[in-house]
Amino acid sequence: MSYEVTERNKVKRVPQRAHYDKETLFQILDAGFLCHVGFVVDGQPFVIPTIYGREENKIYLHGATTSRMIANLKKGIPVSLTVTHVDGLVLARSAFHHSMNYRSAVVFGTAREVEDDQKEQALFVVSENIMKGRWDEVRKPNQKELKATTVLSVEIDQASSKIRTGPPKDETEDYELDIWAGVVPLNVVAQSPIDDNDLKDGLSPSKIITRYSI
Amino acid sequence: MSYEVTERNKVKRVPQRAHYDKETLFQILDAGFLCHVGFVVDGQPFVIPTIYGREENKIYLHGATTSRMIANLKKGIPVSLTVTHVDGLVLARSAFHHSMNYRSAVVFGTAREVEDDQKEQALFVVSENIMKGRWDEVRKPNQKELKATTVLSVEIDQASSKIRTGPPKDETEDYELDIWAGVVPLNVVAQSPIDDNDLKDGLSPSKIITRYSI
Repeated sequence: MSYEVTERNKVKRVPQRAHYDKETLFQILDAGFLCHVGFVVDGQPFVIPTIYGREENKIYLHGATTSRMIANLKKGIPVSLTVTHVDGLVLARSAFHHSMNYRSAVVFGTAREVEDDQKEQALFVVSENIMKGRWDEVRKPNQKELKATTVLSVEIDQASSKIRTGPPKDETEDYELDIWAGVVPLNVVAQSPIDDNDLKDGLSPSKIITRYSI
Repeated sequence: MSYEVTERNKVKRVPQRAHYDKETLFQILDAGFLCHVGFVVDGQPFVIPTIYGREENKIYLHGATTSRMIANLKKGIPVSLTVTHVDGLVLARSAFHHSMNYRSAVVFGTAREVEDDQKEQALFVVSENIMKGRWDEVRKPNQKELKATTVLSVEIDQASSKIRTGPPKDETEDYELDIWAGVVPLNVVAQSPIDDNDLKDGLSPSKIITRYSI
């Protein structure tokens, strides 16, 4: 299954790196938890970082009802939502051919507010996307907390994914230069958990925390 | 020196995490190399990941002249540019108080095209921001390559920074629960460089590459 390709989501630069299928998009979305949400207020663009979770063709966002992003998006205005993983620095022999290895997803859609009776399920999806299993360990939201939280669902209308992998590509004559070329891989790494100062005696982090990886 | 605070850049949620001074903003910008650029075309927001470098109160972006982002931004339309560093997962005792440690910067401005005679200096700034010293190792851009590259300069009109650090903050009564709480720090880590398959014999990466860290 692929998204319709129109002027809006067509990748113009290096189109051979573009993908329009749901499988690729969902893999990129599910590999991250932070997106950058773009919306327009009175002609002015705003780009706000926020966490998310995906369920089928929907992305859930949440925030306080007083947040600018939430207050505007719930009106149903157009939203662009982007997730980027930087996988490495691509060091070529020429300055011009330096690049990055990356996986990025650009989503277009509109948001609607999630109904009260589906809020907790949507928050569970977001929580699971960040740290699978944590929801089951913690105190669940009470009515007051659920009321203070607005959850939005962005149905994915269109999207594009873009992926670069592999070594640098230099001009033929540059391969003779005495310049090292290759890739420096970059990873997001979780360090050892740090106990809260006020941790109750005898508690230690579970395996989902000590073995956490992104 | 601080930026003027108006409705556009005022941090509404958790205002005690907000900063409006240039020093804090520049630290956050200089600690990263990937930003998410927001702009509007016919009412539709676009959020595109791209690399950048900062010089004084300006941010340089670059790309092919055929890129949608470049073609639109050079018209001088409003731009929002966001940089986010995720420093850790903040695991509270309640689902509601889960959070992230982060440093984020949201910049507002407009772009203008950098003149031909200043292009190479601007590209040098971007290159230095990603890997200091690499520019001196590589073949510099020739006239054809410079011509194929558009460089934009975004003067920072207004900005806000937002920072969260430290442990979770739970409801008083929740500190008695038998639930582990604390922080899982996250870092972007550079792995060992991978030689290009077509690397000329006898070349090895310099110390700026083997000791690279973000």
